Amino acid sequence: MSEQKKLSAGVIRNNLAMADGRTIRYYDSQGQSRSAQDQRPKEEQPGIGELRLDPLLNEWVVMAAHRQGRIFLPPKELCPLCPTKGELLTEVPDTNYEVVVFDNRSPSLRKPEGDWAAPDMVGPETDAGTAAGKCEVICFTDNHGGSFKDLTPQRVRVLLEAWIDRVRELSQEPYIHHIAPFENRGEEVGVTLSHPHGQIYAYSYLPSRVQKMLAVARKYMDETGKVLFDDVLARELKDQVRIVAKNAHWVAFVPYAARYPFEIHVAPLNPVADLAELTPEQADAFPEISLEVMRRLDGVFGIDMAYIATWHQAPVREGRDLLRLHWQITSVRRAPGKLKYLAGSESAMGAFIMDLKPEQSAGQLRDVEL
Amino acid sequence: MSEQKKLSAGVIRNNLAMADGRTIRYYDSQGQSRSAQDQRPKEEQPGIGELRLDPLLNEWVVMAAHRQGRIFLPPKELCPLCPTKGELLTEVPDTNYEVVVFDNRSPSLRKPEGDWAAPDMVGPETDAGTAAGKCEVICFTDNHGGSFKDLTPQRVRVLLEAWIDRVRELSQEPYIHHIAPFENRGEEVGVTLSHPHGQIYAYSYLPSRVQKMLAVARKYMDETGKVLFDDVLARELKDQVRIVAKNAHWVAFVPYAARYPFEIHVAPLNPVADLAELTPEQADAFPEISLEVMRRLDGVFGIDMAYIATWHQAPVREGRDLLRLHWQITSVRRAPGKLKYLAGSESAMGAFIMDLKPEQSAGQLRDVEL
Repeated sequence: MSEQKKLSAGVIRNNLAMADGRTIRYYDSQGQSRSAQDQRPKEEQPGIGELRLDPLLNEWVVMAAHRQGRIFLPPKELCPLCPTKGELLTEVPDTNYEVVVFDNRSPSLRKPEGDWAAPDMVGPETDAGTAAGKCEVICFTDNHGGSFKDLTPQRVRVLLEAWIDRVRELSQEPYIHHIAPFENRGEEVGVTLSHPHGQIYAYSYLPSRVQKMLAVARKYMDETGKVLFDDVLARELKDQVRIVAKNAHWVAFVPYAARYPFEIHVAPLNPVADLAELTPEQADAFPEISLEVMRRLDGVFGIDMAYIATWHQAPVREGRDLLRLHWQITSVRRAPGKLKYLAGSESAMGAFIMDLKPEQSAGQLRDVEL
Repeated sequence: MSEQKKLSAGVIRNNLAMADGRTIRYYDSQGQSRSAQDQRPKEEQPGIGELRLDPLLNEWVVMAAHRQGRIFLPPKELCPLCPTKGELLTEVPDTNYEVVVFDNRSPSLRKPEGDWAAPDMVGPETDAGTAAGKCEVICFTDNHGGSFKDLTPQRVRVLLEAWIDRVRELSQEPYIHHIAPFENRGEEVGVTLSHPHGQIYAYSYLPSRVQKMLAVARKYMDETGKVLFDDVLARELKDQVRIVAKNAHWVAFVPYAARYPFEIHVAPLNPVADLAELTPEQADAFPEISLEVMRRLDGVFGIDMAYIATWHQAPVREGRDLLRLHWQITSVRRAPGKLKYLAGSESAMGAFIMDLKPEQSAGQLRDVEL
């Protein structure tokens, strides 16, 4: 049985159960109703992983050893993210779709049973916890070829509505503390499924980078009474030299201290905490700038750039007035035949070295003819 | 003119000036004296880079745009780390060597002029600084083929003496706050020179991972009166299951919350702050365990494993009683044809997901027949 819900921008969501009990959500713009049943045999769900504390850094590491057996390279004729055609039964039972979100088949993080809390962090004697959270897959189009940048503006609007919906719903789960929708693109960052898609990780703890951003923003608020990100944005708007694109509601810039050869932050001009707080006007203005930025990125070298594109948001239950929504795109590609590798300094010390000035990469991005 | 100095373990150091004013240091065990002159034309030294503050994380990023033009792939017949033979003039003027250390030709960090201090960190309005510090290259052998694991124990002892010497000397420089000797191995981590060598980065600030480790260790000391690393080590020795190798002075283990498919920490049983504090007995016992660990690592899949091997030390000027020396080896290789990629969760959120249990990888490493 399908469960239907009306969202904004004319988008309808249809939820259906998959054969193994997972949920698939169709996001449609034409009032479609969805009812195709998952014809695959029932499959046992994998177990839940473990949270272990790295005591030297006081950070959780997820041990997801149960994922090891997962399928990495399906046969070419069977992309699990394509819609089902005839007897080729995929993750999406219907024969077509606009945007779908389904629970990951081999999730690193899973919904815990009953009440859940992370163990107290007390150094090397800290108990292991269960790896609570949610991992979802989001498919941008049923067209196997292409990429985010090839989507129509209208499709990006549906995609954004799906992201917003997921953030709204996942924020209601009491065990979820932070939500990160992201897209990995390119074999250089380990992507084995080329079908345009992203992932949504909903953590039961604050990931270390979020924890650090929060602590820095809190200190800045205490000392200046201002929101750090707002001042960062003001400086980028004032400096101008690193701005890549801008419209009435959004600005895209290479940050002053970028860590990657190509790094772009896309932020609303009127700051919000997360995707769920975007106004309809902001949401409607996102497709244009996001497509422009992605086309500029691929245009720099005329090749498909490997990238990681991540929504940074305020955590679900704290720091709502301290951290701001922005979309961060980073690429390790520094020239057609060259990648930036995170080796000794970056990986072991956390000290980033950049060979390309942000002003220079911003200029290269602006110079792309669209 | 060569400047000679006697170190421990019968090692003699000869310092010579290179044509462009850089210093090369030969570390020898047979009382050699070194005098070969650098015959290459004088070359202008590249400029110094910039330190920019990433205000969202309050971390310095080094902008080393002057390095962009550096040579990445020298012609095959001319490895710049091989000794000079006839007319092929390399970075090492002599026709043979045991271990040499020379200043990096395209350093990310350079010795600053005059007195130096990092700018105050005050959010987005923080001034840029100059990228003060030192970058050195350390060659493990004049034999172009082979790898760390193929060195003789006696050569590893000379190499260790060279590392100790560099830490001693660099610690005297008032602008240096942290020293990290590391080795990147394998094309998978971006290494373009296969000649066995490492690098020494001496930072004028605390790299972010060191800063975090220091804060965590300080809190643990405040709360328990104990040194965090010592308790971590005690737990590993008690648990036993993750120990890979051990001798009278050192232990090698896969940490309880390892972040990489293969990760090994090698630590002295009697803790010290840094390489310079190792006792002669500890130093003499290092070659055996380091070679065993590296041979086990390559033995797991019977291939040359890509790795990053880094000496973690206490900072030069603070936390000397809080952080401990250990040698961390991490590999992204999780199976012969498979790498672990740091994508959305690890790279953008700092949240590590591990598919392999540390107890399992420790078992695989122990099972290797040497």
